[in-house]
Amino acid sequence: MARDDRMQAPLEISAQGSFAAGGTKIKNPGVFDVSTMKPEGQTLHGDHAYAFYQIPKDTRKLSMVFLHGNFQSKRSWESTPDGREGFQNIFLRRRFGVYLVDQPRRGEAGRASIPGEITAGCDDQMWFSIARIGIWPDFFEGVQFPRDPESMEQFFRLATPDTAAFDIEIASAGVAAVCDKAKNCILITHSKGGGTGWLTAIKSSSVKAIVAYEPISNFVFPEGETPEPEASSFGPIAASSIPLDDFLALTKVPIVLYYGDNIPKMPSQNPGQDMMRAGIIVAKRWVDTVNAHGGDATMIFLPERGIFGNTHSMFSDLNNLEVADLLSEWLAEKGLDR
Amino acid sequence: MARDDRMQAPLEISAQGSFAAGGTKIKNPGVFDVSTMKPEGQTLHGDHAYAFYQIPKDTRKLSMVFLHGNFQSKRSWESTPDGREGFQNIFLRRRFGVYLVDQPRRGEAGRASIPGEITAGCDDQMWFSIARIGIWPDFFEGVQFPRDPESMEQFFRLATPDTAAFDIEIASAGVAAVCDKAKNCILITHSKGGGTGWLTAIKSSSVKAIVAYEPISNFVFPEGETPEPEASSFGPIAASSIPLDDFLALTKVPIVLYYGDNIPKMPSQNPGQDMMRAGIIVAKRWVDTVNAHGGDATMIFLPERGIFGNTHSMFSDLNNLEVADLLSEWLAEKGLDR
Repeated sequence: MARDDRMQAPLEISAQGSFAAGGTKIKNPGVFDVSTMKPEGQTLHGDHAYAFYQIPKDTRKLSMVFLHGNFQSKRSWESTPDGREGFQNIFLRRRFGVYLVDQPRRGEAGRASIPGEITAGCDDQMWFSIARIGIWPDFFEGVQFPRDPESMEQFFRLATPDTAAFDIEIASAGVAAVCDKAKNCILITHSKGGGTGWLTAIKSSSVKAIVAYEPISNFVFPEGETPEPEASSFGPIAASSIPLDDFLALTKVPIVLYYGDNIPKMPSQNPGQDMMRAGIIVAKRWVDTVNAHGGDATMIFLPERGIFGNTHSMFSDLNNLEVADLLSEWLAEKGLDR
Repeated sequence: MARDDRMQAPLEISAQGSFAAGGTKIKNPGVFDVSTMKPEGQTLHGDHAYAFYQIPKDTRKLSMVFLHGNFQSKRSWESTPDGREGFQNIFLRRRFGVYLVDQPRRGEAGRASIPGEITAGCDDQMWFSIARIGIWPDFFEGVQFPRDPESMEQFFRLATPDTAAFDIEIASAGVAAVCDKAKNCILITHSKGGGTGWLTAIKSSSVKAIVAYEPISNFVFPEGETPEPEASSFGPIAASSIPLDDFLALTKVPIVLYYGDNIPKMPSQNPGQDMMRAGIIVAKRWVDTVNAHGGDATMIFLPERGIFGNTHSMFSDLNNLEVADLLSEWLAEKGLDR
């Protein structure tokens, strides 16, 4: 199917638009006085998610809801750093409705119910290393990331901060509200969005499958089955506990976790790589726990499938059509592409 | 042409994607050490604009670059609060390439080169009044805004804050970089975006026309011709001075300014309305100055055209197809729709 994508025919979009979903509302006591416009009697609507959606002609039954990771926005799924088509276009071409989300307190959903402080620290080279493009200034051999300066510039400029403290309950409530508007959907998450995604699927029965790209943190286990934090040179990778009844929602939908290349098996002094090594130990335990409770969770390591060089953002890597093909195969196998 | 819009045929998009444009880069002294990931030797890329673009099949020669106003984002031009098509879709259907911008330090372009502090004050009712939907909790008679609670909720949730202090030079540099990527374009601004737009057109010769919806503040005059601030119950509406050579760029492109309804002629105790009354006095002076220097600037007051009830965001009002028709007429008149 990737062959057709490369022809770049026009996209036929039967509907597109955007909305806010979920969120909280706070209200100051008193009565609003228009002549002073003071806070008395006024409200604040915040903590909602934002989604931009596109529904292609002859759309399939399930839509895709895409959730970004830490320090990013829905842009993660749009054009790649070198300007090729990202998963937004690729899966529109494969006839899926696509919802791109900014989680509450991020991007165009920046209005929060609490104040926020944003720092401006220099950390581009940290993100380069965490993304496993290489160890700055060196690229990993064979890495699926373009080496021209403009692509690197675009990569760095994907970053956008939290406008107020990240709160996984607020984030997942907002994303769940998007899923409910999308109706039946496949939730596709990246990195830290993975943890938010598990809670989203627990909150919204509209989620019919979960695809998680390199989830590392915030795995949720049934109370009494939660492993100890896994040490890494990045810091401990901790899991959290939830009631078994909530956890069981995750056994009702097929789940797949994808991991890329250059993840060491032994402890590493590169925190970006070591965090993934430790995260995968927790992730394996989590997949086993889901399956032990009757679920259907799968981990896929791209190098084991003969696909090498993928970074933390494999969906925009040079071979992202191949990465998309893997997903299409899984969706077909699970009957999710009808 | 509005008739065809209402048929809601599928959109045929020959290309769509997104990018960052412009921006600054700062670098910490020292050498990056991956094992500690400390700030030494690291960079920060920030202060860029972000744009999402769509190019329709059989696109016209000029694209449209859309710039939001204060406390908003590119969402201003997407779905209306009641879920109808906004100017994004309307002008795609009219075969214009569309670039929706988040200015630097806003929305998905939230990464800034300086720290930011975000407050969480209750001010929804202020924005309702500034938007001239009515005077909270009352709607203006015949206002072109839907009265159902969900539309009001969506309206409030359009707000998103600056992630760092607004800087009109940084903002206009980012938007100018988007215009340069769009190549020849019509710059369409809203409210405070108007002031940023004048500087954008001075910085980018890609801007071939300017359409400003309800610009109020930051009018730029040639040195020596700048009027005194105009008093209003909102506060003074001040203009600023720029070198004549810069100003003359604004006389080289056709410009139109649109204003809606419920703008009082006499001072008002509603600061939202009074700010517009005062802003229009400055705007008239500005249009006269542009034209005195050989330019082609026009002000259009919708009520004088028999179009009533429009708010500060007329492009998403109930009659936004009529508002779009007015623009299409102006573009045709100026030969900008080839």
